[in-house]
Amino acid sequence: MRRILLFLFLSIFGWNTLFCQKTTDEDALYIRKIYDKALTESVGYNWLEFLCTRVGARLAGSPQAAAAVEYTRQMLDTMQLDSVWLQPCMVPHWVRGEKEQVRIISSRKLGDVDLKALALGNSIGTGKDGIVAEVIEVKSLDEVEKLGREALAGKIVFYNRAFDQTQINTFNAYGGAVDQRGVGPSRASKQGAIGVIVRSMSSRLDDVPHTGGTNYEEGVTPIPAVAISTNDAELLSKLLKEESVRVYIRTTCERYPNKLSYNVIGEIRGSEKPDEIIVVGGHLDSWDVGQGAHDDGAGSVQSMDVLQVLKRLNYKPKRTIRCVLFMNEENGLAGGRAYAAEALRKKEKHLAAIESDRGGFTPRGFTCEGDASIFEKRFKKVVQWSDLIESYGLSFKTGGSGADIGPLKAQKAFLFGFEPDSQRYFDYHHTTIDTFDAINKRELDLGTAAMTTLVFLLDKYGLE
Amino acid sequence: MRRILLFLFLSIFGWNTLFCQKTTDEDALYIRKIYDKALTESVGYNWLEFLCTRVGARLAGSPQAAAAVEYTRQMLDTMQLDSVWLQPCMVPHWVRGEKEQVRIISSRKLGDVDLKALALGNSIGTGKDGIVAEVIEVKSLDEVEKLGREALAGKIVFYNRAFDQTQINTFNAYGGAVDQRGVGPSRASKQGAIGVIVRSMSSRLDDVPHTGGTNYEEGVTPIPAVAISTNDAELLSKLLKEESVRVYIRTTCERYPNKLSYNVIGEIRGSEKPDEIIVVGGHLDSWDVGQGAHDDGAGSVQSMDVLQVLKRLNYKPKRTIRCVLFMNEENGLAGGRAYAAEALRKKEKHLAAIESDRGGFTPRGFTCEGDASIFEKRFKKVVQWSDLIESYGLSFKTGGSGADIGPLKAQKAFLFGFEPDSQRYFDYHHTTIDTFDAINKRELDLGTAAMTTLVFLLDKYGLE
Repeated sequence: MRRILLFLFLSIFGWNTLFCQKTTDEDALYIRKIYDKALTESVGYNWLEFLCTRVGARLAGSPQAAAAVEYTRQMLDTMQLDSVWLQPCMVPHWVRGEKEQVRIISSRKLGDVDLKALALGNSIGTGKDGIVAEVIEVKSLDEVEKLGREALAGKIVFYNRAFDQTQINTFNAYGGAVDQRGVGPSRASKQGAIGVIVRSMSSRLDDVPHTGGTNYEEGVTPIPAVAISTNDAELLSKLLKEESVRVYIRTTCERYPNKLSYNVIGEIRGSEKPDEIIVVGGHLDSWDVGQGAHDDGAGSVQSMDVLQVLKRLNYKPKRTIRCVLFMNEENGLAGGRAYAAEALRKKEKHLAAIESDRGGFTPRGFTCEGDASIFEKRFKKVVQWSDLIESYGLSFKTGGSGADIGPLKAQKAFLFGFEPDSQRYFDYHHTTIDTFDAINKRELDLGTAAMTTLVFLLDKYGLE
Repeated sequence: MRRILLFLFLSIFGWNTLFCQKTTDEDALYIRKIYDKALTESVGYNWLEFLCTRVGARLAGSPQAAAAVEYTRQMLDTMQLDSVWLQPCMVPHWVRGEKEQVRIISSRKLGDVDLKALALGNSIGTGKDGIVAEVIEVKSLDEVEKLGREALAGKIVFYNRAFDQTQINTFNAYGGAVDQRGVGPSRASKQGAIGVIVRSMSSRLDDVPHTGGTNYEEGVTPIPAVAISTNDAELLSKLLKEESVRVYIRTTCERYPNKLSYNVIGEIRGSEKPDEIIVVGGHLDSWDVGQGAHDDGAGSVQSMDVLQVLKRLNYKPKRTIRCVLFMNEENGLAGGRAYAAEALRKKEKHLAAIESDRGGFTPRGFTCEGDASIFEKRFKKVVQWSDLIESYGLSFKTGGSGADIGPLKAQKAFLFGFEPDSQRYFDYHHTTIDTFDAINKRELDLGTAAMTTLVFLLDKYGLE
């Protein structure tokens, strides 16, 4: 009977009463303070302007990446942090080379037509003379396998599976299409193809080609690969229904020896539990076109601004709060790996890590993941903070976090992916139009506020 | 005891069990269908391109407003609706005239400086020679009253209270500042001022002036009023701290006799309860600068697209679903008033009305209002649908709905304001940059899907 009464009691007054570490009105007030500060005294937008318009595109290994390292270190140096340092890592050094040429040759219907294209990152070049071959359109990796050598040897394979527009979150649409870019060239090469054209990974029909990394599988002959704009993919596909089409591709991409680069790190040391580390980060490198504004200048400056806002609030953390600007997310993940390896070597304890790498749009919440042994219990605890963040349009969900912090999962860090509204992200992702003017200051600052709020709650309450 | 048991039962199994009209898995599936259709077969984006780039700005009374009426009627005519008609209303006819000149005159520090300005809608002109006077900066209507005739007679009053950036929803910031534009000129005139400059109603610091209506109170001498860009407001304010400043204003705005215009209406007649009407609408007019893309071309084409999507789904409504494109929201509300008056005259029963007039951004939900006698009960019913829309990022809240449907409140219609993300709206509102290229197709289509979903639920379940 007592058990029944307890059950009834809990049903009426909520399970929270028993299991919840009570958050307080004081917390709500402090979070309001964080938002007020972030919305009126943030600096991220100015830092981002410099990163985008003075430094520009900053692929790992490039002079601009070195400039971005130096610039952000200098900015962190102005913030009276307890330490600021560079963490070395060896990064690949890939160079796009001359402007890509991708051209439909002597179509009966259209004659010669230049297609808007970008070589895929890591792709090999065609050589100076370029390549010409007949184009075979496919919609999937499976189709390539089915068609086989007979159909594809000596040909250019054209991957043309579009984003699924019925997905509400565009990252799901991206996830459903990106195998074509990541693995497509390898798979085509296995069947004897000599080149690959990929439909750009984009939510829109437009004239903007999207680059992005491709990975050559071990033992496969690398073949040149380019992405064309979605409008050009539609055009090419339509033409292929009417006639056989030959395309000329010329790219001069080169891979050079790895280069030394750095993660940029700054921290405020905790007063009570300095050995428990909370990371907040983004990646400092970008692709080599555009200005890397949403991907991921936004996440980088938001992460720096979290510390800046905490400093302005004169907040004294119990735990150590560390901002990490990772190098080489785009084409190697050397920074993320180096960070986790060093943490392991030093036996650091990472309580949690938050990554912002989905653009500087209006915040929706955080997706959470972690080692199975700790996840459920900690996620329950995190969800108890929901009431405090709901009025800011935020919620906690399960889901992937971020590529750079991913390696910390094995060290039992609880991982958060900052989740902004996704609708516009794949308009800009990896393009020439991912520029500073695509950033809305309030949206960026609201992201900083959301991340600072989460850092505050993690610092105050921990995850036990 | 029975009562207590009932209470316990309800506490455990939820009040919903008793009071909830059960929504079904079938509903969830149908809503998924609506989204799939809206995200793959919407037409609104194409209609909007025509409205923005071929028709352009369309202030009530202008030739473009007439073109917008004819265009949208033609489009509704293609949709096999049960009826399409125009509903006449008399609208004001205000014309901006020549490009505004607003100039700081002979500043000791800066010399002459042209300010980026737009006359306020409804404002009288200065006459050909313009006016010159000393500028007095104020932050509020109260300050104008306090300063009084002694300080303000013969002067130009400069209202410079900025948006409160700590508001999470920008409409609250707008609401906290817009009295300066709406009432400011009248209040300044009462104290003998000869002109008014208003800081633009914007979330941003930039060079874009924002127009918008001002209302001259009865019996007050109308005086010319302009808005200047936020950057110029900062500049002027800074200069005023250093020296007294004289400004020259020249506007040639004119008010002409009222003109005949129309609301554009199309409907699908209900099969079971044709006399219960559900309205979905936006306003067809815009200010006379830019292209009225977000305000409110977006809401207009979304409302048309709701019917289009229902037709494509071959949905047969029980109740009558009516799309209303209201005329003259921006400077008179003649369309909204005419619609409500006609409904009253015909003794129509409006179950509910939904207005989209907050831009074509990612949907967040709906704000609800209604006559006090019916509101609470119906709102409870509406909130029971929350589970069905949550996964699309939507929720129901109490709050204002829309200016055009507002007059239906007295007729006991339940009113919904479609609520998209608010962060970027006041970057574009009433400016030359509210153009088609500021619209994201997916964001627009998600709005259509959200509105269609609400129409479906209202039609299926009613509000009793």
